Amino acid sequence: MAKVLTPQNEDFPRWYQDVVTKAEMAENGPVKGQQVIRPTGYALWERMVSGMDDRIKATGTENASFPLLIPHSYLQKEANHVEGFAPEFWTVTQAGGKELEEPVVVRPTSETVIGEYMAKWVQSYRDLPLLLNQWANVMRYEMRTRLFLRTSEFLWQEGHTAHATYEDAHEFTLRILHEVYADFMERDLAMPVLRGLKTVEERFAGALNTFTCEAMMRDGKSLQMGTSHELGQNFSKAFDMQYLGSDGQQHLCWTTSWGTSTRMVGGLIMAHGDDKGLRVPPRLAPVQAYVMSVKDGEGVSEAARALHDELIGSGVRSRLNDRTDVAFGRRAVDAELKGYPVRIEVGPRDLAEGKAVVVRRVEGTKTPVALESVVKVVTEALEADQQAMFDEALRFRADRTVAVKTVDEAIEAAATGFAQLPWDVCGVEGEAKAAAKGVTVRCLQRADGSVPDTDQEPDMVATLARAY
Amino acid sequence: MAKVLTPQNEDFPRWYQDVVTKAEMAENGPVKGQQVIRPTGYALWERMVSGMDDRIKATGTENASFPLLIPHSYLQKEANHVEGFAPEFWTVTQAGGKELEEPVVVRPTSETVIGEYMAKWVQSYRDLPLLLNQWANVMRYEMRTRLFLRTSEFLWQEGHTAHATYEDAHEFTLRILHEVYADFMERDLAMPVLRGLKTVEERFAGALNTFTCEAMMRDGKSLQMGTSHELGQNFSKAFDMQYLGSDGQQHLCWTTSWGTSTRMVGGLIMAHGDDKGLRVPPRLAPVQAYVMSVKDGEGVSEAARALHDELIGSGVRSRLNDRTDVAFGRRAVDAELKGYPVRIEVGPRDLAEGKAVVVRRVEGTKTPVALESVVKVVTEALEADQQAMFDEALRFRADRTVAVKTVDEAIEAAATGFAQLPWDVCGVEGEAKAAAKGVTVRCLQRADGSVPDTDQEPDMVATLARAY
Repeated sequence: MAKVLTPQNEDFPRWYQDVVTKAEMAENGPVKGQQVIRPTGYALWERMVSGMDDRIKATGTENASFPLLIPHSYLQKEANHVEGFAPEFWTVTQAGGKELEEPVVVRPTSETVIGEYMAKWVQSYRDLPLLLNQWANVMRYEMRTRLFLRTSEFLWQEGHTAHATYEDAHEFTLRILHEVYADFMERDLAMPVLRGLKTVEERFAGALNTFTCEAMMRDGKSLQMGTSHELGQNFSKAFDMQYLGSDGQQHLCWTTSWGTSTRMVGGLIMAHGDDKGLRVPPRLAPVQAYVMSVKDGEGVSEAARALHDELIGSGVRSRLNDRTDVAFGRRAVDAELKGYPVRIEVGPRDLAEGKAVVVRRVEGTKTPVALESVVKVVTEALEADQQAMFDEALRFRADRTVAVKTVDEAIEAAATGFAQLPWDVCGVEGEAKAAAKGVTVRCLQRADGSVPDTDQEPDMVATLARAY
Repeated sequence: MAKVLTPQNEDFPRWYQDVVTKAEMAENGPVKGQQVIRPTGYALWERMVSGMDDRIKATGTENASFPLLIPHSYLQKEANHVEGFAPEFWTVTQAGGKELEEPVVVRPTSETVIGEYMAKWVQSYRDLPLLLNQWANVMRYEMRTRLFLRTSEFLWQEGHTAHATYEDAHEFTLRILHEVYADFMERDLAMPVLRGLKTVEERFAGALNTFTCEAMMRDGKSLQMGTSHELGQNFSKAFDMQYLGSDGQQHLCWTTSWGTSTRMVGGLIMAHGDDKGLRVPPRLAPVQAYVMSVKDGEGVSEAARALHDELIGSGVRSRLNDRTDVAFGRRAVDAELKGYPVRIEVGPRDLAEGKAVVVRRVEGTKTPVALESVVKVVTEALEADQQAMFDEALRFRADRTVAVKTVDEAIEAAATGFAQLPWDVCGVEGEAKAAAKGVTVRCLQRADGSVPDTDQEPDMVATLARAY
């Protein structure tokens, strides 16, 4: 097979661009920084939405839909928030052929508009916690964009909750981090993530604390896969979100917000892809098994369809490719590019012996298998490869993570992976020094890898890396 | 129970507004004509998305995502299209703190941007048909808005397909109308719909033909529930969408587009609601069975939870309400308002006799049922009530549909329902005369109720009505 991709170790960003284009994942839109997500890429996002949505609902959170356009005055109500987001606003000034009286902003995130409504809906302690989420598009102006990773418009979920106490809000922020985000990323995406606390510098504009899931890409850089923010009473003050407690007194709510986006698709590509293209973990894969007729005639089509039907009947997400008017080699390269976990090639020679060839994308093996055993072999392969991908990613991260003693060592180590340094040694000054070299503190953790409750905890470890 | 809604026959629009507000379906957003869809309303939309998406995928169509913002120049490429939509544009003129070089429009619909990309993706006859759909938000400036029915921003699906021949495109347009739209509306929403062709006057801006599904609301007005457009070669010309045929020649594609939106939620409310609130057809219902503890103690909570678990285990979408800190009467009124098909009331008196009370929203019956029979009774009720709701709506429409002989009679009959008149008698002049009285031609059908292929067919019947 001809090389269709720039090799990863030759030029990783170019490899990424090649995969996204050649696997027909996405393209640039006509307006700066926007993207068109093509069916191959969108199907991955749909599976992500499904896996995340189940977990979000399991926390008792309900979905809702808030408006795309937010009055500028709402955004100004929380000072840090508007300061952080204002440079990224896309602003609507005309509608129905007239200038608007007040310009409105395409939502960069929805804390403010949701805050306004939550304040109306929350009256008594009986209304709490109020747990909402929306699946939506948002826009943030970006100078340098890259498909999936940094785009002016992206698709995401944003959760927004209000609680009666600090403790309840804090606990919920961490529940989202662990039970929704990290659980989904590790189990479904087969991507191990560091869970930790962001530094003050890296915190969400308007938050008390930001918790994050960070994953290592195959070039050793870090990608922030999702964040869960403890907003304290900053937004409840700004929007006067009060409740009547069982003590008969009015109290301000404690709120949280948390988001993950189509950026995860980019993360998936960069965490698992290889020089042949994307590799999709079986549990996520929209197409788990790809049944191909090698050529026409001799009962090949019929046998391929029978296998496909049998796989579907066994609960495997199978797709049939019977396009024998397109060269087999081209179709096989396309299947590798798109990263289908298992490919089943049905050709006349093997068929004459009652067999089909099972090609595993992760292991790279090609094995003739008796027709009656194909479903069993495929099912076992899917199970095994999900685990193999996670293990491989975990090993990769371990191999590229080093404990260091100084900021200079951390900057050096970040050339190839993650550097771990006591936060007491790094500090805000070390953070600024590293940032000048393009290296950032991705998160703070306790020595045992668990998540600190606040940035005041002693003996925290900082993970430094280059990042997307 | 106290009356919480304005009765339908007293003031239908006010009744609608009451239901939407008091059942916590939606609220006005802060910017003109936008809406906030609350969890109760959004859950209905989620179920609609799921039922529609399955059917859309069954046609071989794949989901994708196109940008929110469309350059003004794209929209101008199809003359009728821009003329139809320009008055409704919301326009972004600033981003990242600067004026944009070219103003961009928040998509009112995506034929133009999708046309641009399809033209790149379609090269040969092998690439056809190209069948795409997106679930997205769109914006159209509206002077008078009403929640769900007419809002500046709404959520919808828009399908866009390209075909090699007129016949293939025509057939696909009708397949969407029948197998996706009408099938979903009649089976899942329990709403009978007229399927027909729009007149030239009511056609989508830029289309050759628009096909529609029209439903009767309980005030006798019509609601356009979904439309499927045959776009001919209008957009393929505008975007130079050509393919190399098997004959070695270049040909222009034939395209279609089709959409349904959150407006269907409004239609559902107005087709099935009564003076107690919404009635949700069981097949659609996010909550099919609502298990309520009447009060605390005497094993009530435990019994209620056991019933709830048993219903869930039997595949019924059950929700448990154990909030005995809220008065039972208030919770029961809320359940009626939200239109849960079946309510199971678990109280100490019935429980002592080994029973719970099953309340059916459609029939209005309250029946004590032995605990061990509850699942069976509920399951049968859900099945029966789905059919009963459809039958009731069909009868309602039949009772309010009259055949008339003149345009004047049609205008009079439209005060209470649908009027059917030969199109030869009505014609474009009759259409204009009726329109001046607020009555429009909802669709054209053949005498047997089937869908004409073009507006040139003889002996068509026009259905006239007032409409939302």
